[in-house]
Amino acid sequence: MDVVLARYRIPGTLVDVERRAADLALEQTVEIPEALVQQVGLKAHQVGQIRQILPLETSEQLFEVEIAFPADFASGGLGQLSNLLFGNISLKPELRLTAVELPPCVLSQYQGPRFGVPGLRQLLGIQGRPLLATALKPRGVPVALLANWAREFALGGGDLIKDDHNLVEPHFEAFLQRVNTCQAAIHEAEQTLGRAVPYLPNLAGPADQMPRRIEACLKLGVTGFLVAPFLVGLDTLTSWTATYPAFWLAHPTFAGGHLHSPQHGMEASWLLGTLFRLAGCDGTIFPNSGGRFSFTPQTCQEISAAARNPLGHFPAIWPSPAGGMSYDRLPMMAEQYGADALFLIGGALLNDPAGLQAATRRYRDSLGQLFPDAQEVPPEGFSSACEWRPRSRGTNRESNGLATDHLRFLEGFQWKGRSRTAYKETADLPFKGVERTELIGQFGEQADFDLRYFEIGPSGHSSLEKHVHTHVIIGARGQGHLRIEGETRTIRPFDIAYVPPLQVHQLLNENAEPFGFFCIVDRQRDKPQPP
Amino acid sequence: MDVVLARYRIPGTLVDVERRAADLALEQTVEIPEALVQQVGLKAHQVGQIRQILPLETSEQLFEVEIAFPADFASGGLGQLSNLLFGNISLKPELRLTAVELPPCVLSQYQGPRFGVPGLRQLLGIQGRPLLATALKPRGVPVALLANWAREFALGGGDLIKDDHNLVEPHFEAFLQRVNTCQAAIHEAEQTLGRAVPYLPNLAGPADQMPRRIEACLKLGVTGFLVAPFLVGLDTLTSWTATYPAFWLAHPTFAGGHLHSPQHGMEASWLLGTLFRLAGCDGTIFPNSGGRFSFTPQTCQEISAAARNPLGHFPAIWPSPAGGMSYDRLPMMAEQYGADALFLIGGALLNDPAGLQAATRRYRDSLGQLFPDAQEVPPEGFSSACEWRPRSRGTNRESNGLATDHLRFLEGFQWKGRSRTAYKETADLPFKGVERTELIGQFGEQADFDLRYFEIGPSGHSSLEKHVHTHVIIGARGQGHLRIEGETRTIRPFDIAYVPPLQVHQLLNENAEPFGFFCIVDRQRDKPQPP
Repeated sequence: MDVVLARYRIPGTLVDVERRAADLALEQTVEIPEALVQQVGLKAHQVGQIRQILPLETSEQLFEVEIAFPADFASGGLGQLSNLLFGNISLKPELRLTAVELPPCVLSQYQGPRFGVPGLRQLLGIQGRPLLATALKPRGVPVALLANWAREFALGGGDLIKDDHNLVEPHFEAFLQRVNTCQAAIHEAEQTLGRAVPYLPNLAGPADQMPRRIEACLKLGVTGFLVAPFLVGLDTLTSWTATYPAFWLAHPTFAGGHLHSPQHGMEASWLLGTLFRLAGCDGTIFPNSGGRFSFTPQTCQEISAAARNPLGHFPAIWPSPAGGMSYDRLPMMAEQYGADALFLIGGALLNDPAGLQAATRRYRDSLGQLFPDAQEVPPEGFSSACEWRPRSRGTNRESNGLATDHLRFLEGFQWKGRSRTAYKETADLPFKGVERTELIGQFGEQADFDLRYFEIGPSGHSSLEKHVHTHVIIGARGQGHLRIEGETRTIRPFDIAYVPPLQVHQLLNENAEPFGFFCIVDRQRDKPQPP
Repeated sequence: MDVVLARYRIPGTLVDVERRAADLALEQTVEIPEALVQQVGLKAHQVGQIRQILPLETSEQLFEVEIAFPADFASGGLGQLSNLLFGNISLKPELRLTAVELPPCVLSQYQGPRFGVPGLRQLLGIQGRPLLATALKPRGVPVALLANWAREFALGGGDLIKDDHNLVEPHFEAFLQRVNTCQAAIHEAEQTLGRAVPYLPNLAGPADQMPRRIEACLKLGVTGFLVAPFLVGLDTLTSWTATYPAFWLAHPTFAGGHLHSPQHGMEASWLLGTLFRLAGCDGTIFPNSGGRFSFTPQTCQEISAAARNPLGHFPAIWPSPAGGMSYDRLPMMAEQYGADALFLIGGALLNDPAGLQAATRRYRDSLGQLFPDAQEVPPEGFSSACEWRPRSRGTNRESNGLATDHLRFLEGFQWKGRSRTAYKETADLPFKGVERTELIGQFGEQADFDLRYFEIGPSGHSSLEKHVHTHVIIGARGQGHLRIEGETRTIRPFDIAYVPPLQVHQLLNENAEPFGFFCIVDRQRDKPQPP
């Protein structure tokens, strides 16, 4: 039986802690009184179970409680995992999640980061030293100024540029225009330098716009994104990182509620380290000790360890200490974090009287001195980061090639570049004499729908079935019938039919000639079911 | 100049608090050192400003700080509003957000709850008493058992049924099957009772599936949803509540990190009251004082006030005290919350030796005695809550009628039930001799795409334009040309063409006959731009 092991720190007498631990195990799984668990027929392995309660050395009234949760409670995404580990109990006092062990069956549910430390090193051709990054800010200055700073930072030797998390445009066009201007300036610098300088715009704003923003950015040659998991939502972020091939850098804004008190909440190593890594983030920003915020050196070390220690199939990701960093602190940061870290320097560069390019050069030179064995060999064939191309949205099938912009219509209802196939590879619903031609959607095209052509031979029929997704049908060849919920429609060329959700339907050809029609469906769709 | 006023409680000496307040005002807006603000040309009204710092009576070392943020920083959704009010500063110690005043220009960005207190009262025909609700649980028992409990609760006089927030299925089909079974049992009870009993399934699981789950549920006659804003993300939730006509009940799981410490985080009245109301929630669940959790009676009163007090154009929403409620506490709850509340009784009903229906009846009778003036007149013409119909997803245009399942093709490339219109209502991009027929998508159909037919007269052409969304074209009448990025393709009947993102394109007819084609586009799409 696979379990998720979670450890909590709970204060109190042993008797109190035992009671609270039992309560926690039930609250987080079945949320019914213990007496009811057996009564409704649940087995012990279907609820949380106390594995051990150990006294902590720091106090006689402080215990570590280990709970084993059934692994299936941890399925369904990071929202549900967070709900399981610290959902309702977040509303109870004096209880801190300190460690989590996830079984392989849970880890394998996540695609994880695409780049992480090794992927970004390969893209940039930089080995053996930390990367130097900056944030474009502040909101309110002309876009041209931001773009110029981005160019200066790149020319000064900077490795990566991200938006400030406060750089937010509510409107799509303003966002795109700014990103375009900044990205163009960085591309220009890349051409001068002969090396890639990734740019990460900030994804914040109306949820409906986000896929459109991401896709537009990728088309502009953007390398990745800055994103605040606690604003966007962990499951939404996981779906973005799985769908869009980009470098995702997590920002900790709004996460602090869970981190503030040593007696409550969750350890930062879990929240900003492991959890963001599971969500597919390639780097995680956190407030460095000694800066504007109040994280301890130990907390920062623990976050870095969670980002870089072995974890299932996940690559190490970049710890990104930030928050009021200065030139003088670089040696200390080099010692603290080693080579595999992304140092974020913001205001200090802007504030430098030498100007931004010279200031960046100074930081970059310092890193060179601190890591004398670093190697820099930009990959061959580089032109700029804009060569990255997004894969098609929402399809899990392998692309059969590139999107074709013109499918010429051939004799006998065939199309150049496309071939007819059997109706379904494995049919659990009976059909007869049906052939399909996938036209658009499965070949790398970026659209929310698929276009297919179906042809039913004489006396043939499709499956009698229903599903939540709808069909739109355009008659094309010969004629046939559509049955919807017992009613029959004749479909002739250019007739259009719509099959609403969950209506039982079937297409039939009762004539001697082939009956052909286009069928348009949502890209994301559910499986057909029997009537 | 419109501003958002936010009040924070900060401990320290006056000098310390002044320094921290100034830091907060910058950190939350421009995030650069004060010296830089003027240097980069920003005006005072473009950053946060301290309005006042007042000592609190409770301590000599505790102050209330009022900051005025420019209202445009609060635009772009509740994620950004949260980022503004408590983003980075959540990572700093000892600082609590206690109150927020939003100007009309921010409030008007939110559609708000569709039902709230008055809407649900109208649907149910119940006036003058609190509603009695329960949660289906625990996870792990057979679906038939949950469905049976739902039926028993309704027959016993219960008003509303929600899923437990731990009732999570990672797989779409399992979710839909359970919801279908429970909803069918409740519909059956509704027919017996002659009144509506709303059922709210729990929306939790992979983000990609959620729109599909919501739409499938609405088709099954589901009235609303249980949702955890802090798991789902505030912006995602806002987009759901604006898109789908349902009763949305917010669950506080995972929100506790922000609420735990009186010295840090945000007041529950803001988080569980106002913020969820802005997101479009019709009710908000919170742990009642005296139950399994540790909220004080005062906190519960403050949440209720935030849910029900006047706020812009938003209706009052339902405070929903929950968490270990019992029969004996009903009189106290009645006094504490009055009539406009949703009492959630969970385990206590299941645990009642009298059986669930009889137990529910006892609670319901008690409410009747506590509110003797309550009126119950189910609306005329009721059959069940399943009469509610979702509006079309993703379109802001008014529906011209119902979806038509069959559009017969008529002479001259016309369709029965559809009419030709001018190409664009306001054209900022030049075109000539183009007519459009909206076929599918703008008439209530539920699909992620629109199907249109365009016809270009002799010597006519569409606009030369580009956009991120793609086109799929199927030739239908005569022939014409598609220009993509300078290259020309001939389009004849049944030829297919794909226009990739941001490719400059135009359709032209250089022949003497009309050139007609179908064009399929994503429902959600960006505006065309000049080349």
